[in-house]
Amino acid sequence: MSVIKCSSRSKSSSPNQKNQKKGALIVGAGEGIGQALVKRFKEEGYVTGAARRSPGGLDFLKDTLDVPFAVDARKEEDVQKMFEEFGEYCDGNIEVCVFNIGANIKFPILETTKRKFEKCWEMACLSGFLVGREAARSMTEKAEPSGTIIFTGATASMRGGSGFSAFSVAKGGLRQLSQSMARELGPKGVHVAHVVIDGAVDSPFIRTHFKDLIAKAPSHAIVDPHDVAEAYVFLHNQTRRGRSCWTHEMDLRPSVEKW
Amino acid sequence: MSVIKCSSRSKSSSPNQKNQKKGALIVGAGEGIGQALVKRFKEEGYVTGAARRSPGGLDFLKDTLDVPFAVDARKEEDVQKMFEEFGEYCDGNIEVCVFNIGANIKFPILETTKRKFEKCWEMACLSGFLVGREAARSMTEKAEPSGTIIFTGATASMRGGSGFSAFSVAKGGLRQLSQSMARELGPKGVHVAHVVIDGAVDSPFIRTHFKDLIAKAPSHAIVDPHDVAEAYVFLHNQTRRGRSCWTHEMDLRPSVEKW
Amino acid sequence: MSVIKCSSRSKSSSPNQKNQKKGALIVGAGEGIGQALVKRFKEEGYVTGAARRSPGGLDFLKDTLDVPFAVDARKEEDVQKMFEEFGEYCDGNIEVCVFNIGANIKFPILETTKRKFEKCWEMACLSGFLVGREAARSMTEKAEPSGTIIFTGATASMRGGSGFSAFSVAKGGLRQLSQSMARELGPKGVHVAHVVIDGAVDSPFIRTHFKDLIAKAPSHAIVDPHDVAEAYVFLHNQTRRGRSCWTHEMDLRPSVEKW
Amino acid sequence: MSVIKCSSRSKSSSPNQKNQKKGALIVGAGEGIGQALVKRFKEEGYVTGAARRSPGGLDFLKDTLDVPFAVDARKEEDVQKMFEEFGEYCDGNIEVCVFNIGANIKFPILETTKRKFEKCWEMACLSGFLVGREAARSMTEKAEPSGTIIFTGATASMRGGSGFSAFSVAKGGLRQLSQSMARELGPKGVHVAHVVIDGAVDSPFIRTHFKDLIAKAPSHAIVDPHDVAEAYVFLHNQTRRGRSCWTHEMDLRPSVEKW
Repeated sequence: MSVIKCSSRSKSSSPNQKNQKKGALIVGAGEGIGQALVKRFKEEGYVTGAARRSPGGLDFLKDTLDVPFAVDARKEEDVQKMFEEFGEYCDGNIEVCVFNIGANIKFPILETTKRKFEKCWEMACLSGFLVGREAARSMTEKAEPSGTIIFTGATASMRGGSGFSAFSVAKGGLRQLSQSMARELGPKGVHVAHVVIDGAVDSPFIRTHFKDLIAKAPSHAIVDPHDVAEAYVFLHNQTRRGRSCWTHEMDLRPSVEKW
Repeated sequence: MSVIKCSSRSKSSSPNQKNQKKGALIVGAGEGIGQALVKRFKEEGYVTGAARRSPGGLDFLKDTLDVPFAVDARKEEDVQKMFEEFGEYCDGNIEVCVFNIGANIKFPILETTKRKFEKCWEMACLSGFLVGREAARSMTEKAEPSGTIIFTGATASMRGGSGFSAFSVAKGGLRQLSQSMARELGPKGVHVAHVVIDGAVDSPFIRTHFKDLIAKAPSHAIVDPHDVAEAYVFLHNQTRRGRSCWTHEMDLRPSVEKW
Repeated sequence: MSVIKCSSRSKSSSPNQKNQKKGALIVGAGEGIGQALVKRFKEEGYVTGAARRSPGGLDFLKDTLDVPFAVDARKEEDVQKMFEEFGEYCDGNIEVCVFNIGANIKFPILETTKRKFEKCWEMACLSGFLVGREAARSMTEKAEPSGTIIFTGATASMRGGSGFSAFSVAKGGLRQLSQSMARELGPKGVHVAHVVIDGAVDSPFIRTHFKDLIAKAPSHAIVDPHDVAEAYVFLHNQTRRGRSCWTHEMDLRPSVEKW
Repeated sequence: MSVIKCSSRSKSSSPNQKNQKKGALIVGAGEGIGQALVKRFKEEGYVTGAARRSPGGLDFLKDTLDVPFAVDARKEEDVQKMFEEFGEYCDGNIEVCVFNIGANIKFPILETTKRKFEKCWEMACLSGFLVGREAARSMTEKAEPSGTIIFTGATASMRGGSGFSAFSVAKGGLRQLSQSMARELGPKGVHVAHVVIDGAVDSPFIRTHFKDLIAKAPSHAIVDPHDVAEAYVFLHNQTRRGRSCWTHEMDLRPSVEKW
């Protein structure tokens, strides 16, 4: 893991200087949801951290992001080090952690190799466990335990579709993790939520690879990542308002999506 | 049905005078969630309507509510008339409709009379159908169909608990209605959502009848209706942002609730 | 309600003459599943009862059926009388009761009249409650409570599809009823189960009205009602084996069905 | 992997000598469900194979079992070799394959090590994938594809309980695998099913470790593995009857179980 410090901004001049700093860490920060989350939480006054596997993978966020991490989230020690370092950046007050790594693959069962099956699960589920557990550790170790952990789910979280054995095992597993953590950590003051995104999310990747499909569909047939970010902010606002009313699971889909 | 005009405020001096008026209608407006919704949507600049069965049942809202209705929501014509009249108050632009009538009863199956079983379903499900259908009619008849219809659900919406045959049939039915309407109306521009409230909601009724239980529990063991209202506003804000990212279902529960 | 005695067979010469008689009552006995159930339980040595609304509706079963009932299952007193009379036929030992009435209708929400919505629910859900409750009464009033109550479900029991508001409210409600009864009655020794039939079931009606579709599909694309009957017998055999291992819910669908 | 030939019975004198042999392979054959399945399928005339990790682990079955395998089902090559060898024993006609390996562990999230989390998933889910895939290969490679693959599930398959993050991730993943395979393989003639066992299953292990609990409960509070075996035989009988009516999922629980 390498920490690439974009600037010293966040350490020296947080917008919350007088108050306690508050951190939001996005693990799996691509050009779709990840980017929108970093921007949105930045607007809300958070010290923002984001992680991707490749060191250059966060360059597009360099004007917004406070603390970029090049981390393979399957590696326990690297995940732990990331939380440690990010914790230092925000005075130990990580308030929000989003796990947003996907690994959507599709193969007939007989062509699903052991390697593919394992890699998919390691990326989309095991990483989620490591990130979720370390977030839980950081949030429960505060004098007053608090914070929000959000896992990004997909259609495959709820349904094992034909050809999606590897992906739906990983996403269904992540959903179970989220439920289990919510039941254990809720009473301790940490809010765990699972967001099922049922539809394609707008991103440069999608626009390149499904150009024709997108040209034909109405603009609102693809999820706008800024709208996803609103939902995540809403979930964390529940936590900020108190402990009386938390959502564990919500779905998000385009109005025209078949389901 | 009788319309009790609290004042002429809403017709003559809506906060949206210059812009188009926008209406929010809450059916089943008790002193818990209903009241919080009326206040919250009023703050957001909506012309607010609310309905209860008894003519005096909305007195406690007289300083906030624009248009009170004394309506038995099981009566088709009265529901239709309510939508017609409320539509006039907000220039045909009903933007939000919440169906919030409950009917929580518990009896062993052998002691559940036909009458109780039917009454419970009529209040908690048939009424929801009539209100939902008329809301859909009003929202799809606009030049540009739009709006949000929200159904309040409960633990019993998801689970047929022992002793809850009547209530869980009604609430499970309401959930199916919501799903069916969401699938049909989403592509037409109307957002239908179902909120599962899994826990007791604070209200004078609860404070009177479960005094001892409440005294023992931490304050956040009971759902604060203002937090519920935030969730409903969030759902409607999804609609206002466009059509790319809508939630059909979310749960709300106290952090300490067992589930 | 009229009881049309086909013959005096069942009273005078049950196949279980020496042992205690045991009764199986099928409510909603059409030419598909209902007929197959009557035949199958007859083979197993049961005194068979079956109910339909119209007096002549069971003529096709006259060689198999012991006790035909012309009953509108929405009428409480008629349902109660049916159980009383059928109880007499099998020495008070009704062992199996199947509720198999459907009411599949499809309309856009705005074209779903109150009348249709109510009728659909009364036929497919309220009737189920009355039949289920009286079956529960009969089975729990035995010296040693025992028996199996099975509700026939459909795709719409699990999912509110577009255009299916009335039907999915009724079937989803029936499923909740079944769950609630299972949780209450299981510990008392009565087995309640819900079978989700996800696909078209073979019957003269289907063969007439969907002739072309059926001609094109492979024979196994339509559920064979005799296979459904095997599943119901299996569920009751669980009850006969003891109380250690009961199924509350199972699905049945053609191997080629999309789901 | 080592194949321990108990005897030469199965190769030389199958009970189906004149007809085609038919094989049933149980992976994860402990003294509870596994044993009951081997005996029950043996009674039905199947050549029985069973696998456990330790070479001596199947000694208790030596009078019943035709082909014992000492296999670690997480090892792809060993699983493949097992199917190859067992295929030879039953003339290429493996009709039934049951995956019955569990790995029930419980730890607070912060005490769930990466190693435990991975091991639990490898045993209860990755193994299921390898076994399921090779079963699918064997069954689809027949001239006329056919057969039944059954996965044993648990309460944790449906619900992420507090403290069960590792186990519910693994079991929830296995359920998703089963769904995905059912949707892909059903139309090809292979029946995939998932059985949710919601309760403790009787076994020497349970009788030793929960002696006091068992002493207090009624005998039917614990699932009898012979009853479980009946359900599995029923599921395979659906396959034998044709392709018109298959169950993908059913639950099994003691009548007195809370759920």
